[in-house]
Amino acid sequence: MGGHGHPYSPAELDLPGFVPQRLSQVEVVAPFVGTSLLLVLSVWLISGRCRGGRLSKTDRLAMCWWAFIGVTHIVFVGPLVFTPDFVSKKNPNYFDDLFKEFSKGDSRYAARNTAVLAYEAIMVGLIGPAALLAVYASASMKSYSHILEFAIGLVQVYGILFYFVTAYLAGFNFWASSFYFWVYFIGANSPWVVMPLFIVTRSWKKISEAFGAKKVKAR
Amino acid sequence: MGGHGHPYSPAELDLPGFVPQRLSQVEVVAPFVGTSLLLVLSVWLISGRCRGGRLSKTDRLAMCWWAFIGVTHIVFVGPLVFTPDFVSKKNPNYFDDLFKEFSKGDSRYAARNTAVLAYEAIMVGLIGPAALLAVYASASMKSYSHILEFAIGLVQVYGILFYFVTAYLAGFNFWASSFYFWVYFIGANSPWVVMPLFIVTRSWKKISEAFGAKKVKAR
Repeated sequence: MGGHGHPYSPAELDLPGFVPQRLSQVEVVAPFVGTSLLLVLSVWLISGRCRGGRLSKTDRLAMCWWAFIGVTHIVFVGPLVFTPDFVSKKNPNYFDDLFKEFSKGDSRYAARNTAVLAYEAIMVGLIGPAALLAVYASASMKSYSHILEFAIGLVQVYGILFYFVTAYLAGFNFWASSFYFWVYFIGANSPWVVMPLFIVTRSWKKISEAFGAKKVKAR
Repeated sequence: MGGHGHPYSPAELDLPGFVPQRLSQVEVVAPFVGTSLLLVLSVWLISGRCRGGRLSKTDRLAMCWWAFIGVTHIVFVGPLVFTPDFVSKKNPNYFDDLFKEFSKGDSRYAARNTAVLAYEAIMVGLIGPAALLAVYASASMKSYSHILEFAIGLVQVYGILFYFVTAYLAGFNFWASSFYFWVYFIGANSPWVVMPLFIVTRSWKKISEAFGAKKVKAR
């Protein structure tokens, strides 16, 4: 722990009344990873039986991602947004410790940096519920499902770009060590780059094709 | 001018080496508004003759917006992003004074707040060029034009939401007076709320319709 009573970087970050993390790294990470894996597996299996097995594998993969996103943003990140004093709470719960742990990879969470907080508030309030709607829309093959998936994916791409750009502009020194830089800041955020890019590209193609087909028909 | 040698709020904002604005409000605003009106009028008239007059009025209105956005972000906002010292430059040019004036409505521009800077950098680097592509795509009735317009509109909606949410979280005290709050912070930013929402709604409907039609056909 640094001279300022917390394990975060930069060491001069001031966190009055900081209460140290009680749970170990494994105790924090295991419930999150376990819940997520169980959820993804369930959605994969259930979606295989949806619509008499007519959903493609990429549709089902996208549904797993939306279910994961919806639950992650609402259940796991929600408490962060609604607990302004999570670093100094006298009786920290699991979610307080989850973000104390994650702050080792990006101390802007502990510092309640406005850019990061706005990013997460929009994710919790809009993207979480929209992602759950996307699971339903895909399962029911609604006509708006492609544009909804495109919309959520694009907001995620833009959001993560914003997250990295603000980190860069603000000094790029928010991780406790290179381990936390690679595993938390880069590693844990990378699915939010890869999956949305995949989904956005796919929906873009499907939508362009739909208009291309319409045009050919109109000729 | 406040005790800290600048006209911005909050008064304690520190801007070392601040060089006062040379141009008056009218000298700053008139070239921007004049250029924009001329551009919008040109695009409106030219688009009326495109494709033998087959473009609808809302298509043409959207094209005017994209042309305006493209030029505003690249020509007028571009210099802000690439001039880190615009408040202290010894020989300020028109663009430096433009943002000194606009900072009266939101001093985060003068302070180079990372959230605002990241927002504008993404607008200048991605949205400006994409908006010019949208003008071309609409004029040529490309099959990707609806999804492109939807994408740019959505990024704008999310961006302006982010802009207002970060302002709220950071204290909501960045305007020199209520005049600048209403005219610059709210007034000048409001087209970035209204027009993208209009475009996003319109593209969403068109895209859903295209898939609805496909589904009916497939039955």
